[in-house]
Amino acid sequence: MTPVPDAPAPDVVDLIRVKRDGGALTDADIRWVIGAYTDGVVADEQMSALAMAIFFRGLAPAELRAWTDAMVSSGQRLDLTAVAAPTVDKHSTGGVGDKVSLILAPLVASCGAAVPQLSGRGLGHTGGTLDKLETIPGWRAGLSAAEFVSMLRSVGCAICAAGADLAPADRKLYALRDVTGTVESIPLIASSIMSKKIAEGTRALVLDVKVGSGAFMRELGAARELAQTMVRLGAEHGVRTTALLTAMDVPLGRAVGNAVEVQESLDTLRGEGPADLVEVTLALAREMLALAGLDTDPAAALADGRALAVYRAMIAGQGGDPDAPLPVAAHVQVIEAAESGWLRTLDALAVGTAAWRLGAGRARKEDPVSAGAGIICLAKPGDRVERGQPLLELRADDATRFGRAREALAAGIGIGPEPPVIEPLVIERITS
Amino acid sequence: MTPVPDAPAPDVVDLIRVKRDGGALTDADIRWVIGAYTDGVVADEQMSALAMAIFFRGLAPAELRAWTDAMVSSGQRLDLTAVAAPTVDKHSTGGVGDKVSLILAPLVASCGAAVPQLSGRGLGHTGGTLDKLETIPGWRAGLSAAEFVSMLRSVGCAICAAGADLAPADRKLYALRDVTGTVESIPLIASSIMSKKIAEGTRALVLDVKVGSGAFMRELGAARELAQTMVRLGAEHGVRTTALLTAMDVPLGRAVGNAVEVQESLDTLRGEGPADLVEVTLALAREMLALAGLDTDPAAALADGRALAVYRAMIAGQGGDPDAPLPVAAHVQVIEAAESGWLRTLDALAVGTAAWRLGAGRARKEDPVSAGAGIICLAKPGDRVERGQPLLELRADDATRFGRAREALAAGIGIGPEPPVIEPLVIERITS
Repeated sequence: MTPVPDAPAPDVVDLIRVKRDGGALTDADIRWVIGAYTDGVVADEQMSALAMAIFFRGLAPAELRAWTDAMVSSGQRLDLTAVAAPTVDKHSTGGVGDKVSLILAPLVASCGAAVPQLSGRGLGHTGGTLDKLETIPGWRAGLSAAEFVSMLRSVGCAICAAGADLAPADRKLYALRDVTGTVESIPLIASSIMSKKIAEGTRALVLDVKVGSGAFMRELGAARELAQTMVRLGAEHGVRTTALLTAMDVPLGRAVGNAVEVQESLDTLRGEGPADLVEVTLALAREMLALAGLDTDPAAALADGRALAVYRAMIAGQGGDPDAPLPVAAHVQVIEAAESGWLRTLDALAVGTAAWRLGAGRARKEDPVSAGAGIICLAKPGDRVERGQPLLELRADDATRFGRAREALAAGIGIGPEPPVIEPLVIERITS
Repeated sequence: MTPVPDAPAPDVVDLIRVKRDGGALTDADIRWVIGAYTDGVVADEQMSALAMAIFFRGLAPAELRAWTDAMVSSGQRLDLTAVAAPTVDKHSTGGVGDKVSLILAPLVASCGAAVPQLSGRGLGHTGGTLDKLETIPGWRAGLSAAEFVSMLRSVGCAICAAGADLAPADRKLYALRDVTGTVESIPLIASSIMSKKIAEGTRALVLDVKVGSGAFMRELGAARELAQTMVRLGAEHGVRTTALLTAMDVPLGRAVGNAVEVQESLDTLRGEGPADLVEVTLALAREMLALAGLDTDPAAALADGRALAVYRAMIAGQGGDPDAPLPVAAHVQVIEAAESGWLRTLDALAVGTAAWRLGAGRARKEDPVSAGAGIICLAKPGDRVERGQPLLELRADDATRFGRAREALAAGIGIGPEPPVIEPLVIERITS
């Protein structure tokens, strides 16, 4: 209830109260608290109280820079100087049907850059890139640092799981925030994402900040603030960073799930991708190539099979068989149009939640995911549909899962007498 | 990052987010979360995040009532129906030199009420009633429920430590708040105090809410809000409750410490008490007797030795020897007036901190306290003092402690050419 005059400084309770009462933490305070938390000196209940205080009070730019520095410094920073090509990575804040990484990494690599992508697994209604790639027989997510660098030198890209020594403070803090209601804080989100990307060693980064019902950020203002915060953090740490705000009210492409998204990625690399997926992928590719200083047209690399060749090499380089058939779910059900008209809405959150309930996603970190489960969108907003026409194909290994998936979709499909206004996919571009 | 549709309800992360985002928790939510926390199902890091969210968002009256109910229900509620006399207790939010309980409990008992006082130990610059009484040879703070009731029937009062089965949720939550910077929340303070008093079984309660530099509440507005909140909670739980806001800018009485405060209490019970201590004690006694429905004059009971007789019986009933000499500190130093004039300020926080540093208080729960250490105020604000005149007597068992105690006092003593304006001790009275 009162300051303890004989306690050694800094005292974590004092730091929590400073932040709680709207004050600023010093660089030394922040370095100490992140280190002490990683070492177990600051307890989980103290860090969660501090995280909640940060939720309410925010972090000033100088605090956030120090916070991010401390997270990077809690582990190893990868050294990619042995990679001759300019390095550039992409990070998406997560969306429904967002398989962009699978296409983009080989595409940009085929244009001359190196793409060092450390990725994560899905939790909740948005899928994880590693979960998708793991449906390819033989493919493995774990690479040593030497294997990672070797892949970047030989193939030009690699998508793999982050090692335990990459920003361990973030790993511990993220798990804590997940169970304490302190995820939704822009500075904490920004420092979590950027600390991993800075530690990864990439020289440049393009952020795909999704906005809309199926995104983590539903409001444009919050998405813009997150993007600006991350772009600034990148610049402060020597990582040239650009962000695109892209729409996530409707699933991206037609496939939502794991193996079904790998298949759609392959189709796209063969020049048969859905227009929205191609548009977002090329927009991100152009930003990445610009940051890498490469004047190559990614549309040509996609069209002429160069990107596909790199994709096959990337899969094979991580033990996968690019020609092996992908897993298929045991059961299929179809949802038909309840009336004739224009498909006006196909809500990304509803589709993502339904795919998750079909088995494509996990509720807890330790849960397995179903490789074949998911949803194929047979129609997209703007399409004319007739009553009884199949709109969605639902796939599951466990037939008992269809009921709750259908419930999730019930309010997510809107058909009306007028065609919808289709908003632009790329909403805004943010640079430092 | 997204709600988990298959998780069993209520989910603690959802409850944290509801409170965090300004929503209201239901009675069932609150009952569940307090019970699950007491049982270890809700983790410390989740409860501390919730406590921080409550710090920022508060608790609405219905939430606070349910919160307090749940804390009371987490343990045993004492049954004092076997006590024939009307029960009435007092709680102070803590001040410097606040030995009122030692005088007030026997005083009110001598007027015909029963005073069932479960008390605590000191932490920080305010002393604990149990620490003071424990300086009396033989006296023990621990009583069984049966011994407690027996004392109330035979002597009319008892001051003892709360058992582990009294509001265990509060015990666990208070320890958590202490290390997570979440103490300073009016609803959490109010529910912590009132849950213990409700569980204690008293039918009436007078609150002494201290305001000023040496009090937990430094601002009148916050003290008033705390008092109003506790008075309402008492009424809602069938405990008739009145609060007095009393000044705590200057130590109460002249003695600050453990044995020295017991000695001053004895002096007061013998009719030789300092005026400010007598005034506050009688004001609280009158409120307690009014709530108990007793029309007795406490000033007479103090003057004619009835209160002293009950005090001696109370000490003896808990194993203490009221005639045994009290411990005396090994070392004494005197602080003299640096100039001549009027003593204008004698800051309660400075004196409390100095006494604490001399050994009278503890920085951590597990620390021992020194029985004899403390401070005697030889002058009080409003006294005329001459340069070199002794103002304070510092006592310590460990002579190395004087230096830091003097540092704490340096800015706390003010002498000027004009006498100070002495503000009333009893600032405000709050009833339901």
